[in-house]
Amino acid sequence: MSESDGTKQPMRIAIDAMGGDYAPGEIVKGAVEAARKLGVEIVLVGIKPDIEKELSGVNATGLQIRIVEANDLIRDGEEPAFAVLRKPNSPVAMAARLVKEGEADAMVSAGSTGAAMVAALQYLGTLPGIDRPMAGGPFLGLAPETVVLDLGANVGCQPYHLLNFAAAGTVYARIFLGIDEPTVGLLNVGAEEGKGNDVAKEAYSLLKKSDLNFIGNVEGMDIVVGKANVIVCDGFVGNIVVKFCEGLGRAIGPWMAEELKDTLSPEELDKVTGKLVRLMSPGTVLGGGPLWGVNGVVAVAHGSSQAPQIVGTIEQAKIALETDFVGKLRVELEKAQAGMSSSE
Amino acid sequence: MSESDGTKQPMRIAIDAMGGDYAPGEIVKGAVEAARKLGVEIVLVGIKPDIEKELSGVNATGLQIRIVEANDLIRDGEEPAFAVLRKPNSPVAMAARLVKEGEADAMVSAGSTGAAMVAALQYLGTLPGIDRPMAGGPFLGLAPETVVLDLGANVGCQPYHLLNFAAAGTVYARIFLGIDEPTVGLLNVGAEEGKGNDVAKEAYSLLKKSDLNFIGNVEGMDIVVGKANVIVCDGFVGNIVVKFCEGLGRAIGPWMAEELKDTLSPEELDKVTGKLVRLMSPGTVLGGGPLWGVNGVVAVAHGSSQAPQIVGTIEQAKIALETDFVGKLRVELEKAQAGMSSSE
Repeated sequence: MSESDGTKQPMRIAIDAMGGDYAPGEIVKGAVEAARKLGVEIVLVGIKPDIEKELSGVNATGLQIRIVEANDLIRDGEEPAFAVLRKPNSPVAMAARLVKEGEADAMVSAGSTGAAMVAALQYLGTLPGIDRPMAGGPFLGLAPETVVLDLGANVGCQPYHLLNFAAAGTVYARIFLGIDEPTVGLLNVGAEEGKGNDVAKEAYSLLKKSDLNFIGNVEGMDIVVGKANVIVCDGFVGNIVVKFCEGLGRAIGPWMAEELKDTLSPEELDKVTGKLVRLMSPGTVLGGGPLWGVNGVVAVAHGSSQAPQIVGTIEQAKIALETDFVGKLRVELEKAQAGMSSSE
Repeated sequence: MSESDGTKQPMRIAIDAMGGDYAPGEIVKGAVEAARKLGVEIVLVGIKPDIEKELSGVNATGLQIRIVEANDLIRDGEEPAFAVLRKPNSPVAMAARLVKEGEADAMVSAGSTGAAMVAALQYLGTLPGIDRPMAGGPFLGLAPETVVLDLGANVGCQPYHLLNFAAAGTVYARIFLGIDEPTVGLLNVGAEEGKGNDVAKEAYSLLKKSDLNFIGNVEGMDIVVGKANVIVCDGFVGNIVVKFCEGLGRAIGPWMAEELKDTLSPEELDKVTGKLVRLMSPGTVLGGGPLWGVNGVVAVAHGSSQAPQIVGTIEQAKIALETDFVGKLRVELEKAQAGMSSSE
């Protein structure tokens, strides 16, 4: 990585310029802002004329911005994961290849998360013991210091998956939330040991034996109050909870607007409903972030990202590089796995 | 049952007078109100002097109220399920025995649900194909026409459990929600067929082959908008979702109170936060209701029930008797199970 040779070269971030609802316009705009604000070098990957057209509309003087051509776009209706494999010259595949070949330090995409995941797996691989990348983060505005994973990338987990999630969440909470000794809870149907299905029971005993700061089972309501800094669950459960929460947030805004329309002014109403939806909306807190478990820094932004969210996601990639997120994750995963095999 | 002999005897409901946070006072009061309002005969089961004392404080003239002594109370700290087996003269066990012996048509308890369940299993048994009673209901005020089950009684389900839940939910929605052809959705991580873990995939195909009005997979946000009238899931998932929702409801009230304290009067604030909490609070909608899958009408009320909730739960028991909930459930379960074996 560029930091380690002592020459203080800026970090080089490859951006999938064509991925996302507002690509390439907002992606290019965000990337240029990130180059200025964060002092990173930007590699815009995509269709050159389209990118140049967008660049001509913004002030990029003095910034380190390059373009790498990759014009084999993934089209609507293509299964993104397969398309990535078939199209090595798609922007998302090219961005991953740049990282693999040492031409960039990290990649960022606001396109399909599935496509980014496959590109990451294909060109960078996973960390030891990881079958596929994990998805998670502090998804609830009410509990910003609580990381929940997995949120849907891993469905049908074995107990060791939950241990991996706990290790990954612990590293994430240290680096991105600044919590020294994050507490870990196992999402379950009751607080007592021995509750739950077979996977939960066995995961409980793995977590108990681990070096992690495991505080036992937590229940659904404990997510809301942030009872643990890291809450682990099968992606089947996590995905349903996070989407349920998102749905509630969307329903409660209009309900409140109707309920208070005679009491509050339209401005007051917008303010309070907007705040409430943000508190409950997973996207806002989660924002963009690194895929966990990939052997390299691959940060994904929501498809609806505009320039500010792109800047935010690039900043997360930069923090991941500066703090050696991937190296620390590797160490914590190896520790967890060693503990697991030694205790058998 | 008393209706079938044509003599129009009132339905006889055995009440665990000693179970619940406000027992025996509110239980006796509610039972007396139910006798007057619903025209049922009440059998109060518990410690006779305690019940008589409560009865002396209310007007029970002309009502059909009997007392059956059962003084071997289950104490705090006892595991309720085991205690029921050890104590056939506990009020909850006695109430179940009265139903078994034809001395009552249905039983109601606001004590431990686990204890009521064990009493039901011990003395009444389950319907064909049912391992243990199911827990469910329309748990979200925002989606009052959507029954979700299982909510925690059955953890670690096989595909046939989910089929049973769908059959039971369908009967419940017909009888208690008045929906002729309830739609059934399978809670999953994506809308398309083929999504989810192995159990979900196999349950999908069982549901598809069944006679039920199956509309496919539904996701977390679909619970909120009531996309199906019956949504089925493993009790592990249902329990976490319902507790998460309850926790959110509890957190959002105080948040709104703080947020709007300078804008709304205390009265207005109480009104809107109270409404919101009720919309999200499982208990309010669910209230008391029959245990599903028991071979008899056993209705449980929340532990915090006061007289009005006791009346409501007794009314649910009465509806279950009048509509032959148990008989219809048996037929629907048998149909589902026949379809399952014929398609193998």
